Amino acid sequence: MAFTSIQKIRFNDVDGAGIVYYPQFFHLCHAAFEDFFDSQAPVSYPQLVGERRLGFPTVAIQSEFHAPLSYGDIAIVELSVSEIGNSSLKLGYDIRRERDRALCFHGDITTVLVNLDTLKPVRIDPELRTILEQYLAR
Amino acid sequence: MAFTSIQKIRFNDVDGAGIVYYPQFFHLCHAAFEDFFDSQAPVSYPQLVGERRLGFPTVAIQSEFHAPLSYGDIAIVELSVSEIGNSSLKLGYDIRRERDRALCFHGDITTVLVNLDTLKPVRIDPELRTILEQYLAR
Amino acid sequence: MAFTSIQKIRFNDVDGAGIVYYPQFFHLCHAAFEDFFDSQAPVSYPQLVGERRLGFPTVAIQSEFHAPLSYGDIAIVELSVSEIGNSSLKLGYDIRRERDRALCFHGDITTVLVNLDTLKPVRIDPELRTILEQYLAR
Amino acid sequence: MAFTSIQKIRFNDVDGAGIVYYPQFFHLCHAAFEDFFDSQAPVSYPQLVGERRLGFPTVAIQSEFHAPLSYGDIAIVELSVSEIGNSSLKLGYDIRRERDRALCFHGDITTVLVNLDTLKPVRIDPELRTILEQYLAR
Repeated sequence: MAFTSIQKIRFNDVDGAGIVYYPQFFHLCHAAFEDFFDSQAPVSYPQLVGERRLGFPTVAIQSEFHAPLSYGDIAIVELSVSEIGNSSLKLGYDIRRERDRALCFHGDITTVLVNLDTLKPVRIDPELRTILEQYLAR
Repeated sequence: MAFTSIQKIRFNDVDGAGIVYYPQFFHLCHAAFEDFFDSQAPVSYPQLVGERRLGFPTVAIQSEFHAPLSYGDIAIVELSVSEIGNSSLKLGYDIRRERDRALCFHGDITTVLVNLDTLKPVRIDPELRTILEQYLAR
Repeated sequence: MAFTSIQKIRFNDVDGAGIVYYPQFFHLCHAAFEDFFDSQAPVSYPQLVGERRLGFPTVAIQSEFHAPLSYGDIAIVELSVSEIGNSSLKLGYDIRRERDRALCFHGDITTVLVNLDTLKPVRIDPELRTILEQYLAR
Repeated sequence: MAFTSIQKIRFNDVDGAGIVYYPQFFHLCHAAFEDFFDSQAPVSYPQLVGERRLGFPTVAIQSEFHAPLSYGDIAIVELSVSEIGNSSLKLGYDIRRERDRALCFHGDITTVLVNLDTLKPVRIDPELRTILEQYLAR
């Protein structure tokens, strides 16, 4: 099962070549990750960060860009879980544009749950793990 | 005397109309304000914020946009001080583009020195006041 | 009648002081303006810009900041029309945070309809004028 | 030989966890790529894009994040060339923070020279190739 987040491409998302600036694709991924937490997890991402002082910094990325997004596009971001370690979480992201369903981007993004004050890894708790397992790609 | 900060317009600063997205003009102002602190003030802006837990949130803006900035432009941001109150600080910003020295933007931005934990106003100390007074517009 | 656009504050909207970076308030206003066009106007803003080569660059701003927005906030952006000239369009924006309905920002933003290739003012056509009149603040 | 670009981390580069938002690392890479063109190539990147209608969209990324950047940091971005194909260009980026020279990020970014109107690959011309070869990593 994948989690889907819909993101509207904005007037300022484009670059001097008139297409979406490539770092913005990772912003779309992060926005989907936030939406996933905010709607599916025991705590929203603002609560995780602000109250529990936990976060999922990115440690590795592999990605390919297949087609551009343009101003006026709606991005469909699909997030699925590839691997759940003790503290690490590997996520897969597909970004399509709504107008023709073309796959624009695929990214594999590895994150680690850390304490934000110490930056030390923290074990993913059973409650969150159970939810993440529902989004494991098969 | 005005303080000058030079900012390069980047590939992602433009919008769907191909010119610099107007909120970015305020980012250019803030970057100049940071550069002013980092080079002229007793503490850098990161130290002011991180160590002293002080900051200058914006409370009011009056601005006019006269000409666009484009990708490839160099922005010349001139900052001067208009008024120094107990806690408030009113700054004037002129943004010109290097290629023809055209005035692109003028902004009057009022800020207040606050404690970032309480958001209560804090008196501008004599050392900072003396430095700010050197940049008073006449 | 006001037009309302709901915008989620994202992980990257905050600054080093932990609150929404003030230039982002203008981005919220622009996003609401785009949403207004995309849902209410005869053409979406991407079509206006891309096909008709028209746009509404900002020429003047007056704004006050009353309360901060934080990560986790939902911004309620209300747009109304203050004045419609031959080519100029003055808009009023109120931004509130959902959690307590506090008014965080008010801005009066004057724009001018221009041809994006010549940057010359263009008359607001009767069809768009009729729609804008429905949002005139009283 | 590597090309070095120095980038100041700004007040708005941080995220809700108080460290530089990870998509910004790719923005730092792009800024270094622009600086490389603007100072070393036969045409600046704005000229390449605006006059020649050419660009180097990103097609693939592999990257690792080793240490965070914070507000107040100076980022030292080192760019070198890994491979030069007919149209493709693979670049390596190391990002260090000035305060302790810690390696924060390494990225391998593959781009392709395309005509921006057709998005078709275009051969890298001999003049540019000669310059790129000087930055080949060994």
